Order: sequence, then C-alpha cells, then structure tokens
Amino acid sequence: MPEVYETRRARLRERCNASGSASALISRPANVRYLTGGAPHGAVLLLGRTEDLLVYGATLDTPADEPRADGGLRVHALPSPGGDPAVAAADLAAAQGAESLAVEEHHLTVGRHRAIGSVAPGLRLADVGGAVEQLRVIKDQEEISCLRIGAEIADQALGELLESILVGRTERHLALELERRLVDHGADGPALRTSVGTGPHSGRRGHRPTDRRVEEGDFLSVCLGATYRGYRCEIGRTFVIGTSPADWQIELYDLVFASQRAGREALVPGAAYRDVDHAARQVLDSAGYTEGLPESTGHGVGLEIDEEPQLAPAAMGKLDACVPVTVEPGVHLPGRGGVRIDDTLVVRPEADGGPELLTITTKELLAL
Amino acid sequence: MPEVYETRRARLRERCNASGSASALISRPANVRYLTGGAPHGAVLLLGRTEDLLVYGATLDTPADEPRADGGLRVHALPSPGGDPAVAAADLAAAQGAESLAVEEHHLTVGRHRAIGSVAPGLRLADVGGAVEQLRVIKDQEEISCLRIGAEIADQALGELLESILVGRTERHLALELERRLVDHGADGPALRTSVGTGPHSGRRGHRPTDRRVEEGDFLSVCLGATYRGYRCEIGRTFVIGTSPADWQIELYDLVFASQRAGREALVPGAAYRDVDHAARQVLDSAGYTEGLPESTGHGVGLEIDEEPQLAPAAMGKLDACVPVTVEPGVHLPGRGGVRIDDTLVVRPEADGGPELLTITTKELLAL
Repeated sequence: MPEVYETRRARLRERCNASGSASALISRPANVRYLTGGAPHGAVLLLGRTEDLLVYGATLDTPADEPRADGGLRVHALPSPGGDPAVAAADLAAAQGAESLAVEEHHLTVGRHRAIGSVAPGLRLADVGGAVEQLRVIKDQEEISCLRIGAEIADQALGELLESILVGRTERHLALELERRLVDHGADGPALRTSVGTGPHSGRRGHRPTDRRVEEGDFLSVCLGATYRGYRCEIGRTFVIGTSPADWQIELYDLVFASQRAGREALVPGAAYRDVDHAARQVLDSAGYTEGLPESTGHGVGLEIDEEPQLAPAAMGKLDACVPVTVEPGVHLPGRGGVRIDDTLVVRPEADGGPELLTITTKELLAL
Repeated sequence: MPEVYETRRARLRERCNASGSASALISRPANVRYLTGGAPHGAVLLLGRTEDLLVYGATLDTPADEPRADGGLRVHALPSPGGDPAVAAADLAAAQGAESLAVEEHHLTVGRHRAIGSVAPGLRLADVGGAVEQLRVIKDQEEISCLRIGAEIADQALGELLESILVGRTERHLALELERRLVDHGADGPALRTSVGTGPHSGRRGHRPTDRRVEEGDFLSVCLGATYRGYRCEIGRTFVIGTSPADWQIELYDLVFASQRAGREALVPGAAYRDVDHAARQVLDSAGYTEGLPESTGHGVGLEIDEEPQLAPAAMGKLDACVPVTVEPGVHLPGRGGVRIDDTLVVRPEADGGPELLTITTKELLAL
C-alpha cells in the first residue's frame, strides 16, 4: 500500500509548510521507515520541494529489504561508499532550489549538521522537531493489526515457557528460550531485551538476565515482546515458584495488580497522560510505596518499543483513540524481589468496549 | 584495576590540554566505558578541571552493573529522572570554572548540544573529535585476553554447530542456536547480529537470516561473534553441504581463501591500512572479481564490533602492534551464492611470530 506512505508524507509536508520550511530531511530510522515503508540501513528521506527522495549509500551489504519506491518517492543510491546520505540529501535539496531545510535536531549529530551546513551553505537549516514522532502516535488499522499479531506471538511464547520446568534454570537461559520461541512463532525478532528476574531480581524493570537459577519460593518476573513487520509490543508477568505463595507475596501481587487495573481502566480517549499515571501510582502510594517507584506507568509502542506518549507524572497531553500503550506498574523491594505486571493495550472509546487488551495471558497469580 | 581507567583519562586529558580545552564531556557509550570501566545506560563522563565526574540519571531502572568509582572519579547521580546527564555535566564543568568544554560532536545531537549551550552560556564548546576512539585502537594485555576468550567461545559455538545435522534447518534457527551456544559458553551475548546464509544467500556480508532451509549442495556461510566483558570479536566461515563440492565452489573457495591469507600476511606493524586491503583485494581483482567487492577487507574490533582502523582502499594510517582487526574478504555471485572467510587477529611484530590468530576454527573447505 504505497499510498499509505504518500499520505503520511503529505501530512508531514503540511506541518513543515505551516512552520515555514518547504523541505525536510528525516534521518531517524523509525521515522524514515514510517514515511517510506522500509529502507536500507542509514537511509534518509528528503521531503523535497519538487519530489521526495530516499537517499542511501549503495553498498554490497545493503540489507535484503529493498526500498519500495512508491508514487512520488524516488530512490537515490549514492554511487560511492562512505558518504553520508544526509549530506547528499541536503545537496539535492539545494539543487531543487530549497531555501530552508528542516532537519531532526534530536537525531542528527553536531558533526553531521555541520557537514550539511558546509555542503549547502545557502540553505537555512531549521528544526523539524518531533513532528514525525507526533504523526506516529495514532495508529491505523494495519499498524494495530501488526501489534495484535506481535502480542499473540508473545503470549504464545510465554505460555509455552510456563508449561516447562523452571526450577534450576538460569535467568539467561529462560530469556534465550523465550526469544527462540518468539522467532519460532513468526516474530521478526524480540521487541526488546528479554528480561527474566528471579528471587531478589524479580520486579525490577529492565533487569538483565544473570546466571541466577530459579528456586522454590521465588517470585519470577518476565518481560518480553515480539516485533512483527517492524511493530513492537510487550508483555510482563510475575509468577511464584512452588505450591504456595507466602503472604507477603500475595499481598504485594494483589497491590500491583490493583494498580495495573486502575491504570488500564484510566485508558479512555481524552484522558491526560499524567492522569493515567496517577491512577496506577496512587494505588501504590496509598499502600505506602511512595519511594522507589518507576518513573512512568507506561509508554507508547509502535515502530519503537518506547515511543510517545509517556504515561508519567510530568507528561503533557491527552490520549486519543487508536493509541497503543503499555501499562506496567511494579514494586521492587531491595533484597526480596517484587512484582511487575505489564500489558499492551489500544485506547478505544467506551462505546467500542473500552481499551483493547492485546496481551491476553492471565494475570492471576500463578504458582508454577 | 581502577588505575587503568585513571591512566586512560590522563592520556585523554593530555590530548585535550594540547588542543586548548581543560575539560571534556564524553558521551559515546563505548568511550565512557573505556574511560571508566562501566557505567549505567546514558551516563556521561566529565573530564573536569578539578575532578572527573561520572554523571547519570538516577532511576530505579539503572542496570545492575554499578559504576565503579575509582581514584579521581566521582559519581554524580542526577536527583530527578528525565534530565540529560550531558547537560548536567556541562553545568558542573561551568561550576568548576571551566572556560571551554570539548564535546563529542560526532555523537552529541544538535538538540543536546543546544541544550548544553543554554545551560552554560559562558562555556566555549569545542570538539574533542575521535580522540577517545584513537586511544582505543591499541589494546592492552587485559583487553586482548578478553578478545581471546571471546574468540574461543565463538570457536566452540561454531564447532558444536558443525557436529549437528544441518540439512533442512532454517537460517534463522541456526543463527538462534549459535547465539544460545555463545551464551552457554560464557559470552555476555552475541557480538554482532549472527548471520547465516545458505545457497544464494551465502557469502553476503551481514545477511539477515531468513526462513530458507539448508539444502544439499549449498554453500553455507556463517558469521558470529562473542562479547566477553564488553569486548567483541568475530569469526566467519563458509562450508559446503553434501559430500562433494562442485568445481565452481572449490575454485571460488580457494580464491577467497588465498585473498584472506594475503590479507592476514599483510598484517605487520607499520603496514598502511590500505595496503592490507590491497593485498587481499588484488587477489580477487586479478581473478576478474573487480565489481561487487565489499567496501573494506576488515576493521578493528574491541568495545565495538566495528571500530578504528578500517582496512579499506581510502583509509589513512598504519597498523601498530597490539591492534586487533578482522580480515574478511568475500565474493558473492548474485543468484548462486558465495564465500566469505573472516578471522579476528592481533597485529604482532614478526619477531613475536607475526599476527596472532584468535579465531582458530579450520579454514579448510569442510563438506558437511
């Protein structure tokens, strides 16, 4: 569907025109992919005055996913290796007669920006800011269906792991096993560094798997995700190992579960990002967990695993329908471990049944 | 050995002083690690006028590898989340009375550079260039022994794969299997995206594994590497599947082998980078493979899998002893496949026996 990308570029062009730049240079990889449907490593997009160009260095090693030139997008491969596509694109913009070029100052390095300035000294460089990131927030049906399939794959991989014997295996091995299963079920690859935390490591966000082995009585926290056609989602669950959880484990689990549910229920179109965060956070706060809480309750997902919006205390903005986000509160007690529960959901109007849960693995406290 | 990091910082300080900046801000992760021994995600190093500071955002999610403060390095965790450690470090530099601050313009984005300029308007911002990358080129004994262990791990993982049945398995599965074995043998993780190419995909540098299955008569190219204590090495081999290679396969293999040997033999202290490239390249050239050759014959390895020096036609500079590099020529025939042979070696004087081969898996053409 090349027209999808053309439409996206047209929307970006409107924004650029509104802020006074007829041309824009997009270099951030996820943004280039969003606007072109896929491009070789290092490719940049010139949203030009007269035509749009996908510019990249022609190398033997250009990955197999060939750029799909569509209506209005021409592909320009640099003849010699080693050149910077961003610099070449600026040169082409100048050749098209552009007077100003909006670049992604949050992505371009100072060095590349300077090189662009030297090659096209007549071009006034402006900042396109997070314009493409903003366009990416609301997803279309196709994007959501990629996320839905990714979530299904992650659910399957996790479900299979739960049927296997866990005691005695290391965090590292469980993480590798999960990643293998993701690929088995059709993922492009993991959406994030798979996190497996046992015992005192459980409940830590982003915990890197170690050689610690699963023991009876442990909490076991797992966070994984699948990438499907470039779209990334995530799921996190916490289990208890052995037949009967301790009282403190049940209490802590129930608390985090209540917090996560409050966060999920706050996902309605029009809700302020910070209010979703507050809904989940105040459950933990009021139980006395005021310190050591994560910075945010969740975040957007899409072509990147952590993108706009941020569901955090200081975040500005309001949710729209068709925005996929995670809701992932957690509590970690140093030395003891903790609980983290993480879902990917799509915001939907109440009339449509409220938030659509993509990751459907049970959130009961399973004793494995 | 905190004194190692102190010595490295002292060498960088000399360079900065020589170019007129008493203070430097190092933000590129591998450079920060090189100068401090390890730091949380996003940490920056301020090489200060009065003291050195490792600055990072204090978050719950700070990874487990704690920064090791050593003599002369103080750790400064930002109290609130969301701040940019680079901006905070510039502020601290100004507070130390610095007049100018050298930053890594090839790493800092324009946006962060601007933010630094606003928070410390009195500070003259200079460019430290690739100073730390240059320091990293020659490795010490400790670094080389990490690479040696990594190479041993990669050899083991590859050796085990060769003992298993390959026909009928997909590139994707073989790649995952290799990565699991790397971790089994003690790697921190893969050093690069493991590449497995069969049949028409064989011999392509950086080929991303697909669902193509290994068939009788295929060439099978594999490139993998282990990260050990942060240090990354790689090995690449090509095999033939079935009992007897075809004549074209033997010829092509012998040619690439001769090219790779010529490259390895050119690794002597004092040799120009481009001459090493030329040595390997001219073997392929003179056999008529002038087009479609890779841009470079090899590259340095260390804390990054692709670092200085580049062994390429236009590269400037000469090899020193104790520089680890890859030698990895290859030929890929579109539609038919090809051969790639890749070793990691350390440059050594002839008196010490010449280049030290770290990846010792046989380079005979194995029929599997």
